[in-house]
Amino acid sequence: AVSGAITDAKGDRKKRPTQQDDIDVFVHLVEKRDDGIIVSGIKVSQSGAIGSHETLVLPGGSLKEGEEQFALAFAVHNGDPGLTYICQYNAYSAEREMCDDESDLGNPVYGQRETSTMVFDKVFIPWERVFLCGETKYCGKIVTRFAKAHRMNCGGACKVGFADLIIGGAVLAAEYTGVEKIPHIQDKIIEMVRLNETSHACAIAAAMKGREEPKGSGVYLPDDLFGNAAKLNTAHGFWEIMKNAGDIGGGLVVTMPRLKDLEDPEVGPALKKAFSATGPADKRLKVAKFLQHWTAGLHGPGTWHGAGAPQSQRFMFTVLTDFESKKKMAKKLMGMKE
Amino acid sequence: AVSGAITDAKGDRKKRPTQQDDIDVFVHLVEKRDDGIIVSGIKVSQSGAIGSHETLVLPGGSLKEGEEQFALAFAVHNGDPGLTYICQYNAYSAEREMCDDESDLGNPVYGQRETSTMVFDKVFIPWERVFLCGETKYCGKIVTRFAKAHRMNCGGACKVGFADLIIGGAVLAAEYTGVEKIPHIQDKIIEMVRLNETSHACAIAAAMKGREEPKGSGVYLPDDLFGNAAKLNTAHGFWEIMKNAGDIGGGLVVTMPRLKDLEDPEVGPALKKAFSATGPADKRLKVAKFLQHWTAGLHGPGTWHGAGAPQSQRFMFTVLTDFESKKKMAKKLMGMKE
Amino acid sequence: AVSGAITDAKGDRKKRPTQQDDIDVFVHLVEKRDDGIIVSGIKVSQSGAIGSHETLVLPGGSLKEGEEQFALAFAVHNGDPGLTYICQYNAYSAEREMCDDESDLGNPVYGQRETSTMVFDKVFIPWERVFLCGETKYCGKIVTRFAKAHRMNCGGACKVGFADLIIGGAVLAAEYTGVEKIPHIQDKIIEMVRLNETSHACAIAAAMKGREEPKGSGVYLPDDLFGNAAKLNTAHGFWEIMKNAGDIGGGLVVTMPRLKDLEDPEVGPALKKAFSATGPADKRLKVAKFLQHWTAGLHGPGTWHGAGAPQSQRFMFTVLTDFESKKKMAKKLMGMKE
Amino acid sequence: AVSGAITDAKGDRKKRPTQQDDIDVFVHLVEKRDDGIIVSGIKVSQSGAIGSHETLVLPGGSLKEGEEQFALAFAVHNGDPGLTYICQYNAYSAEREMCDDESDLGNPVYGQRETSTMVFDKVFIPWERVFLCGETKYCGKIVTRFAKAHRMNCGGACKVGFADLIIGGAVLAAEYTGVEKIPHIQDKIIEMVRLNETSHACAIAAAMKGREEPKGSGVYLPDDLFGNAAKLNTAHGFWEIMKNAGDIGGGLVVTMPRLKDLEDPEVGPALKKAFSATGPADKRLKVAKFLQHWTAGLHGPGTWHGAGAPQSQRFMFTVLTDFESKKKMAKKLMGMKE
Ligand SMILES: Cc1cc2nc3c(=O)[nH]c(=O)nc-3n(C[C@H](O)[C@H](O)[C@H](O)COP(=O)(O)OP(=O)(O)OC[C@H]3O[C@@H](n4cnc5c(N)ncnc54)[C@H](O)[C@@H]3O)c2cc1C
Ligand SMILES: Cc1cc2nc3c(=O)[nH]c(=O)nc-3n(C[C@H](O)[C@H](O)[C@H](O)COP(=O)(O)OP(=O)(O)OC[C@H]3O[C@@H](n4cnc5c(N)ncnc54)[C@H](O)[C@@H]3O)c2cc1C
Ligand SMILES: Cc1cc2nc3c(=O)[nH]c(=O)nc-3n(C[C@H](O)[C@H](O)[C@H](O)COP(=O)(O)OP(=O)(O)OC[C@H]3O[C@@H](n4cnc5c(N)ncnc54)[C@H](O)[C@@H]3O)c2cc1C
Ligand SMILES: Cc1cc2nc3c(=O)[nH]c(=O)nc-3n(C[C@H](O)[C@H](O)[C@H](O)COP(=O)(O)OP(=O)(O)OC[C@H]3O[C@@H](n4cnc5c(N)ncnc54)[C@H](O)[C@@H]3O)c2cc1C
Repeated sequence: AVSGAITDAKGDRKKRPTQQDDIDVFVHLVEKRDDGIIVSGIKVSQSGAIGSHETLVLPGGSLKEGEEQFALAFAVHNGDPGLTYICQYNAYSAEREMCDDESDLGNPVYGQRETSTMVFDKVFIPWERVFLCGETKYCGKIVTRFAKAHRMNCGGACKVGFADLIIGGAVLAAEYTGVEKIPHIQDKIIEMVRLNETSHACAIAAAMKGREEPKGSGVYLPDDLFGNAAKLNTAHGFWEIMKNAGDIGGGLVVTMPRLKDLEDPEVGPALKKAFSATGPADKRLKVAKFLQHWTAGLHGPGTWHGAGAPQSQRFMFTVLTDFESKKKMAKKLMGMKE
Repeated sequence: AVSGAITDAKGDRKKRPTQQDDIDVFVHLVEKRDDGIIVSGIKVSQSGAIGSHETLVLPGGSLKEGEEQFALAFAVHNGDPGLTYICQYNAYSAEREMCDDESDLGNPVYGQRETSTMVFDKVFIPWERVFLCGETKYCGKIVTRFAKAHRMNCGGACKVGFADLIIGGAVLAAEYTGVEKIPHIQDKIIEMVRLNETSHACAIAAAMKGREEPKGSGVYLPDDLFGNAAKLNTAHGFWEIMKNAGDIGGGLVVTMPRLKDLEDPEVGPALKKAFSATGPADKRLKVAKFLQHWTAGLHGPGTWHGAGAPQSQRFMFTVLTDFESKKKMAKKLMGMKE
Repeated sequence: AVSGAITDAKGDRKKRPTQQDDIDVFVHLVEKRDDGIIVSGIKVSQSGAIGSHETLVLPGGSLKEGEEQFALAFAVHNGDPGLTYICQYNAYSAEREMCDDESDLGNPVYGQRETSTMVFDKVFIPWERVFLCGETKYCGKIVTRFAKAHRMNCGGACKVGFADLIIGGAVLAAEYTGVEKIPHIQDKIIEMVRLNETSHACAIAAAMKGREEPKGSGVYLPDDLFGNAAKLNTAHGFWEIMKNAGDIGGGLVVTMPRLKDLEDPEVGPALKKAFSATGPADKRLKVAKFLQHWTAGLHGPGTWHGAGAPQSQRFMFTVLTDFESKKKMAKKLMGMKE
Repeated sequence: AVSGAITDAKGDRKKRPTQQDDIDVFVHLVEKRDDGIIVSGIKVSQSGAIGSHETLVLPGGSLKEGEEQFALAFAVHNGDPGLTYICQYNAYSAEREMCDDESDLGNPVYGQRETSTMVFDKVFIPWERVFLCGETKYCGKIVTRFAKAHRMNCGGACKVGFADLIIGGAVLAAEYTGVEKIPHIQDKIIEMVRLNETSHACAIAAAMKGREEPKGSGVYLPDDLFGNAAKLNTAHGFWEIMKNAGDIGGGLVVTMPRLKDLEDPEVGPALKKAFSATGPADKRLKVAKFLQHWTAGLHGPGTWHGAGAPQSQRFMFTVLTDFESKKKMAKKLMGMKE
């Protein structure tokens, strides 16, 4: 597996890389050698990096003349000397650590999305694994190309799959309390499907309108207007899906006891009574735990920022839209000469 | 041109066609003859019918046994004896009627979407133009097939084109008052593009995932989940687009004087002063009139109901979604045995 | 009756009054005389001005040193020499002009909100009717005070009354087609009530939290944070209310014929058949015409901009909110020292 | 402290209490004795119950004749024989349990809202602490009265305070990365304030429009229309506030390491580098942890369901709104006789 590292630590967001108090907040060139380069700096929020064989490291955005030091793209092996991964830690990490039995968890097999801070301290990268070194003018393009595929996939496929699971869980929860035919519940299920299929449609459109880039290369990349739409619709839609699923799951999603308490000789029998409905208590609690994972944890802001802060997708719409042709059509229709 | 007639007058919405006080609120069979059929009843809200050469008449929805009388699909010529068109009339009709010069109007060449009430009073339809007569079991299917193409096109193409014009007009309005670079204005323009491209993407996905139906027929129809998503996103999105464009247009969109007052010897000079900004007064007023047509008139509820009330699209999501597979996936992930 | 004139024509929105090509886009001082002042300039979008006895004229916003010429507040009589009103004109104006019988209209007695462009061409104002003349430092304050009452009333009372009418009309429409008990219809009615009572609550809170200003004056003014909230919630909520009412009204709201066509000997009988449901055709059409007035006309952007563009209310939140105390509380809770 | 117990375990939501397989899913009367009553059954999701001195137990909703067994209102001491509390357990519980130092937590002093399942197993309640026993006709009223105060406070005060903290935290986060003046950040802060002050206004209106109930009792209760509006606006608004605060906090809110890792000799120095921006790393991480607590945990569905599922507040609008007067006004305005 290969993970993709874009996000630099960035420091003061108003300043360029060269202006930072400590340039280590951006991955940068320390030394050019005959056999390769030495790099330092910090990439943050790296999904799956610690579990990948390699990481593809790209610049965090466009760069200008004078910023050659940061114009780096390369591949690095997990375990290369000088490279440290510092893992995320939160309530969900603690819960997994503390539990005796994984099946007590909301997402037993896959858990949360593991990210880490990747610290490069004079890491050596041989030339054959360096793709950019100083060519600032290609940085914007390389990031944009990465984003094309990434936003389509992240917004329109990955999170659509997440939401399919949430919808499945919410329908089960409704069936287990007998509310699945109640109109407002049905409407909430419909709303989740609508939001999810909308993101899905954007991904299909992105793929469908993809283009060979550059011409003749045999490499096809998705359309970025629709890819950005996929990500942006998901960013907002996912919060709505969480809200609707949390509604259907009931207060239990938040206030439930430990799953294994059901088997406890002292409190188990009472809990079985308490949570039996049209479905048995163990299924109700299992589904509530599953929905807790998805609607009462890290997925809201995680989905929002993964593949880039939504404001960057909004910005892309200004760049990618042909406003001149829309103005021209409007003028024509209203009979305005030039 | 051929228009499509689905919507019956319907009477009491809680009752089936046979239960209505007056069955003329649904188009129905009066007599079967050797050479054809005689039909009566009323279709309402018929876009462009009065300007079309023919109209394709379909049932308004699924029918059950015992409702054979309403199971009709046929083509009728504009002008056939017994067929009357009663046109819509509203403020925009009055404005056009009263104006001396079309260029004073907000949408001078195309005007509003003209609909009419089509009254069938014992209209004769020869057999070769009759496609269904009594076959209730095909009614649901024929309407669904019509809807597949219609919702994709209406929600994902027709209104996307409308909105492209609105976006073009709003950008011009912003440029003519000098606000086009102000952040909240840019954000509103982005929001309109996002909403519009989302509906557009749904239409592309509907086309892309279209299927040959029935197999071997050579007839391909769009996917209806995505088609319904296109229509539903547009239903909501169009109101948002109207809101944002109205914001950018300013109060002028509502409070403007008559366009030709600009040339009036008495008040013209003052109006030219009043409405000159970064663009000249005549252009500002022309754009304001254009935006008035789109944001302060019939397009809100018109877009909402055209191609079917959104509640029917929501309903389709329950029918078209495979909830079993989503439940199964969720169960698998949470480790729930059956 | 007294109308209130704030909105100058404004010209290029990026420029200050003194920088405009033609200063007539702002009301300004032409001459100071012993007995009074001479003013020129243009105020736009003046609700009810032409039907009022007097107009209270205020500056359009804060002013700085060097802009004394625009620091004017005064009262002017309707009909004073040099003052011209140029009325708005739109489709709804045309409809009223063309109709033989007012009861054919959607809002027969009150019609649309009439605004006009007020052109001041060397109008004389005697000193006893001049409240500010050159005191730039009070301009911001006078406008803010006006806005306090205006936003509370406009957003939280005036439009709440409009919406009560719309809700009433929508409920009637539902009853006349027999859909009033259908869950999604009930939900839409609830949504309209919720939105409307929310704006209403903001107005009550604004009044309740009003303060004597200045202390000891006996003059109480509403709280502006809640007044701005009233206006802003209404700006968005009104579009939502229009959307929901248009949904309930059905396509008829857009596609209806002329009301008086019901009495037409030729088409009347068919129209009566067509539009009879659980309510009689004349009532259904009358309600549809009423909802057309409210949901398919000028009220969307009109409500949005009346009492100021929503962006100005948003801006006020930054000014009026005590962020320091919120930061302090947060720091305290997280145990962060200073 | 006294906690309030309304929510029964409820079992099958389609069935009345008497129809449940096991009536223990509702608190009910087991025996009437001379000195008091014996009660059994289960209340779920009880905020703060385990930490309160007493709990006021009320029926979960209106009851009908034949359901006397469930018509119970009484006070119970924490620790009374037969009463068991089974605590909630989730990731946030685990995190607190595992941490050596509370200051590593997102909400160190107050933690999460602790709820428990309260199991009544033949608990004895002396008569002087029993307020209802069998009087089904007062059950609806007693619950409604409780809800009046509860929804106003929960939606319009408690969660408004939560959100003030979130806003404070988000502003700090913005200042520590240098983005506090960027327009979209300011707009998000404004949006949070607008949503929050709207709920706040609803609570003020509810208090202001409160009535003495019953007349002459000296007991004033808040208005329930506005109280329900407070809760409902908060239910939706809180998710939006979480979304906006998560945006401003950045990916760090999700992907951050353990707070105490900052002091770790091995990884601390790198983390300090990584997360220094315009504010120091320790403050940035502390704020991120605080925002994690609020936006990436239990508060979304918790706020949604606390004080009742929003669908019950929506339902109350139908009950509390005077639709007849709105219909009458609409009819009058459109000139419709009776
Ligand atoms: C769960 C998760 C997984 C992730 N996985 C990966 C991964 O695998 N690889 C990877 O490279 N990255 C990954 N990321 C990082 C992600 O791309 C970033 O979180 C995102 O780009 C936002 O950057 P930030 O976190 O530094 O936020 P910040 O920069 O702190 O943003 C905070 C706010 O400030 C705004 N802002 C910041 N700078 C500016 C500016 N200059 N102008 C205007 N607004 C500005 C942002 O729009 C946002 O509103 C992941 C993030 C998450 C949450
Ligand atoms: C501008 C415009 C152009 C149009 N063009 C055409 C055209 O070319 N051809 C054509 O055939 N039609 C056309 N239509 C008609 C359109 O398809 C209908 O308006 C739409 O299907 C709604 O039906 P209705 O107008 O009878 O509304 P109503 O049936 O009166 O609906 C009012 C409300 O009641 C609800 N409702 C009604 N019945 C039920 C029920 N049984 N269960 C649940 N809810 C219900 C609806 O969802 C809606 O919320 C057009 C409409 C418009 C506005
Ligand atoms: C029906 C109606 C009734 C009205 N009644 C009255 C009345 O009785 N008395 C009265 O005085 N006024 C009245 N108004 C005018 C109303 O106050 C203005 O329409 C409103 O303040 C917006 O100003 P504008 O129309 O000039 O819009 P514009 O200034 O053209 O605004 C267009 C857009 O540009 C933005 N914009 C403009 N300038 C700036 C800037 N400097 N910075 C950031 N954004 C900017 C606005 O926010 C908006 O998004 C009425 C308006 C309407 C529609
Ligand atoms: C953090 C938290 C704190 C709480 N604190 C307290 C407390 O201190 N005291 C207390 O008494 N309660 C408390 N509650 C409980 C809260 O009042 C309930 O969660 C809420 O009323 C919903 O009930 P439920 O959890 O049983 O959900 P469910 O009944 O399972 O609801 C799930 C969904 O089904 C719907 N539904 C259920 N039944 C029907 C029906 N008959 N008709 C239509 N729709 C239906 C609901 O609207 C919801 O959409 C708390 C809840 C939470 C989350």
